[in-house]
Amino acid sequence: MNVERNLTMLTDFYELTMAGGYFENGMKDMIATFDMFYRRNPDKGGFAIMAGLEQVIEYLDRLSFTDEDIRFLRSKKIFSEEFLEYLADFQFTCDVWAVEEGTPIFPNEPIITVRGPIIQAQLVETMILLTVNHQSLIATKASRIVRAANGRSIMEFGSRRAHSYDGAIYGARAAYIGGCTGTACTIADRDFAIPALGTMAHSWIQSFDSEYEAFCAYAKRYPNSCTLLVDTYNVLQSGIPNAIKAFDNILKPLGCRPKGIRIDSGDITYLSKKARKMLDDAGYEDCKICASNSLDEYIIADMLRQGAPVDSFGVGERLITASSEPVFGGVYKVVSVNKNGTEIPKIKISENVAKITNPCFKNLYRLYDIDTNKAIADVITLFDEEIDDTKPYSIFDPEHTWKRKTITNFKAVKIRRKIFDKGNLIYKMPNIEEIKDRCKNQLETLWDEVKRFENPHTYYVDLSQKLWEEKQKLLNF
Amino acid sequence: MNVERNLTMLTDFYELTMAGGYFENGMKDMIATFDMFYRRNPDKGGFAIMAGLEQVIEYLDRLSFTDEDIRFLRSKKIFSEEFLEYLADFQFTCDVWAVEEGTPIFPNEPIITVRGPIIQAQLVETMILLTVNHQSLIATKASRIVRAANGRSIMEFGSRRAHSYDGAIYGARAAYIGGCTGTACTIADRDFAIPALGTMAHSWIQSFDSEYEAFCAYAKRYPNSCTLLVDTYNVLQSGIPNAIKAFDNILKPLGCRPKGIRIDSGDITYLSKKARKMLDDAGYEDCKICASNSLDEYIIADMLRQGAPVDSFGVGERLITASSEPVFGGVYKVVSVNKNGTEIPKIKISENVAKITNPCFKNLYRLYDIDTNKAIADVITLFDEEIDDTKPYSIFDPEHTWKRKTITNFKAVKIRRKIFDKGNLIYKMPNIEEIKDRCKNQLETLWDEVKRFENPHTYYVDLSQKLWEEKQKLLNF
Repeated sequence: MNVERNLTMLTDFYELTMAGGYFENGMKDMIATFDMFYRRNPDKGGFAIMAGLEQVIEYLDRLSFTDEDIRFLRSKKIFSEEFLEYLADFQFTCDVWAVEEGTPIFPNEPIITVRGPIIQAQLVETMILLTVNHQSLIATKASRIVRAANGRSIMEFGSRRAHSYDGAIYGARAAYIGGCTGTACTIADRDFAIPALGTMAHSWIQSFDSEYEAFCAYAKRYPNSCTLLVDTYNVLQSGIPNAIKAFDNILKPLGCRPKGIRIDSGDITYLSKKARKMLDDAGYEDCKICASNSLDEYIIADMLRQGAPVDSFGVGERLITASSEPVFGGVYKVVSVNKNGTEIPKIKISENVAKITNPCFKNLYRLYDIDTNKAIADVITLFDEEIDDTKPYSIFDPEHTWKRKTITNFKAVKIRRKIFDKGNLIYKMPNIEEIKDRCKNQLETLWDEVKRFENPHTYYVDLSQKLWEEKQKLLNF
Repeated sequence: MNVERNLTMLTDFYELTMAGGYFENGMKDMIATFDMFYRRNPDKGGFAIMAGLEQVIEYLDRLSFTDEDIRFLRSKKIFSEEFLEYLADFQFTCDVWAVEEGTPIFPNEPIITVRGPIIQAQLVETMILLTVNHQSLIATKASRIVRAANGRSIMEFGSRRAHSYDGAIYGARAAYIGGCTGTACTIADRDFAIPALGTMAHSWIQSFDSEYEAFCAYAKRYPNSCTLLVDTYNVLQSGIPNAIKAFDNILKPLGCRPKGIRIDSGDITYLSKKARKMLDDAGYEDCKICASNSLDEYIIADMLRQGAPVDSFGVGERLITASSEPVFGGVYKVVSVNKNGTEIPKIKISENVAKITNPCFKNLYRLYDIDTNKAIADVITLFDEEIDDTKPYSIFDPEHTWKRKTITNFKAVKIRRKIFDKGNLIYKMPNIEEIKDRCKNQLETLWDEVKRFENPHTYYVDLSQKLWEEKQKLLNF
């Protein structure tokens, strides 16, 4: 079981000062709608992978201020006793919609919508962003690395370079959703059933008098899962010959086959080719070759282009920190407030056109071609708008509206689910394998042009005619 | 109080397979010595800041496997019952030395040394690296940003972009050690007494019918800590004039002065100059200007060079993820094993000369010039070696040994403290303010040439003659 932590106080302080302000202004129960969305795909990719919803749900479900929290807030000497009493009795009563974990997502889409009393809907901003930004970042990076490996397995090896404990633990979870086959992070196996694997460090080899003795000791102890690290001294002159000797002398008499060897340094393409030949010549064609050492999607793709006979990759720091672009810039913006029963859409204008928000309480459709099952476009609509997929439907570029396309023979699917209804959790959380499968299956609905690394096709994310008109009204105001 | 988490299972799985191997081989009580060190300063800087020791101590102090952990490990079906029993009774009995938090550190120095039964000293690798890598990364980045601000205050604003919860919480802690004056992260204030601050988001402004109403409502509620966000619509045409009107109409009658205004977008240098003039002309010379929006040390230095009259900076994603270089590459290597009373130094040879490790159980001195109190060099010695600072001492470059220098009039300080003695915590943890002060004071012992951003001087980290000779023996073997 995961430790149950109440993270209510993991919030930017301004969420609390605003809450205090709404409370004192008699605005606390004004219904407001907030969207989480992001603006740009990491690594110039064509999409991202949604992840972190399970932890958002846990957070919202546990939202409550302890006596200690209230004492602490009182000590700041800026909040009224009435407001602190309100917090002490705080109950989350909002409606929440979200894209399910493992789903490909695109810029500007409302991937989470929170609608309810503004004091509540605002307060949850920091934790929603923190959770989804982190896990989507890592799931997206993992998906890239897994695609580069083209069917070979990717192990997440990055705990020691993660940004603290949860960075490692939830990073391992997100990496698994993104397609990794396992992790080195033991606690992620205990808590999330993500297969943890590992064998030995160089220090294992060095603590024996010789590499061969170290290999024999390991093979004796783990005859059925024997993967040997062969680069402590010299891969081709020492590591591989000693590994073969240990396989021959220890495993063979036990009737066991070796699992693999791991190369963690040097020119892995060259070394793996030579190692493969030596292992094959010794009768160990089934012995896998695993590579590690500062790998990422580009290095892996390059190794495979050169014909490196590597069967699996251990990827550490560049995955667990998404080091090429370690920030997933999801934001959380108010899109509507309801005053005395009247819905007032809100827009944030910016001189930077890309930063202008989409106003209104909205919904999100994905349109699939019925013949190919490929995703054609996403359409953001007003919340109650229905897309009738029995009739031709016209989509258009929201910035260059003359770019139009009429589509037929499609199905329109709302890709968000209602998660909380007036604060009650109504969503049945899928398990991690279901999420991982969803990710794999949903990726198959994307054209290769959207998935490639270099200059991917920009997937259509359009606004419905009605939403577009609402936006124009506000822009022209 | 911080939630007490037992993170024993946050370990790379190979630490456990190796532990199982040492156990079955009768090697579990062989004394081994491991060093943590790093190889390269982030961002091409001249040094890093040590941080995370308090959390390493908490981890080591709580190290124990729960029944649930043992059940989980049994389910992996590769460990013997004897080994699982050993883990169930696990007690940490090692000696640990470490550089204190807030101290400047340099590549290749043993910043932490763990010496004890190999099964224990190996097991703690992942968590020591994870903890110190993360916090040192953020403290080092914070120190850079704080130095760029040249006396102006830096607030850590990054929770929403952190790599999960601990990334935000311990990131706020490390940023404070590195010199930030506060954080937006409320829980970091509750748990670590790091001052949390915050006022409003754009959504506060947008939830009112007008910017002016929003400002008045905030000023009424928080008359003594009124900082207004002025860029929701237009800083100069709307934000500043409305802020001045709210100061005049709400704060003045209450006898209060405004705290500040915050600009979160646009050309902040230009806007801050204009805003300063408008505020001054309205009689608010004491109203501070705060800037935020994707800042880092380079942008801040550039703004100040251009004369931006900004009094404080809120720094988010580029600090909390150290986005320019989000990996602190600390490693943990065996440097010695003791067999039947004989100490056997261990070295990891690599074709990459920079990756060859320093063998032996070692100590670390910093030599300070007595007149200037500036640090001259660090010297890594054998553990029991004493540097006699009453006599001239000769230091030399370990790679280019003809580069020699004899120093006089210096004091030699062992910069590591013994933290655990046979598993017993003997170190009195300083509080966060003491750590922050240490960092500030220790930075003053570094020459400006080491602290500059562009091509900093490489601070001397030398080996003692004895250690150098031991290393040569192993290299020539």
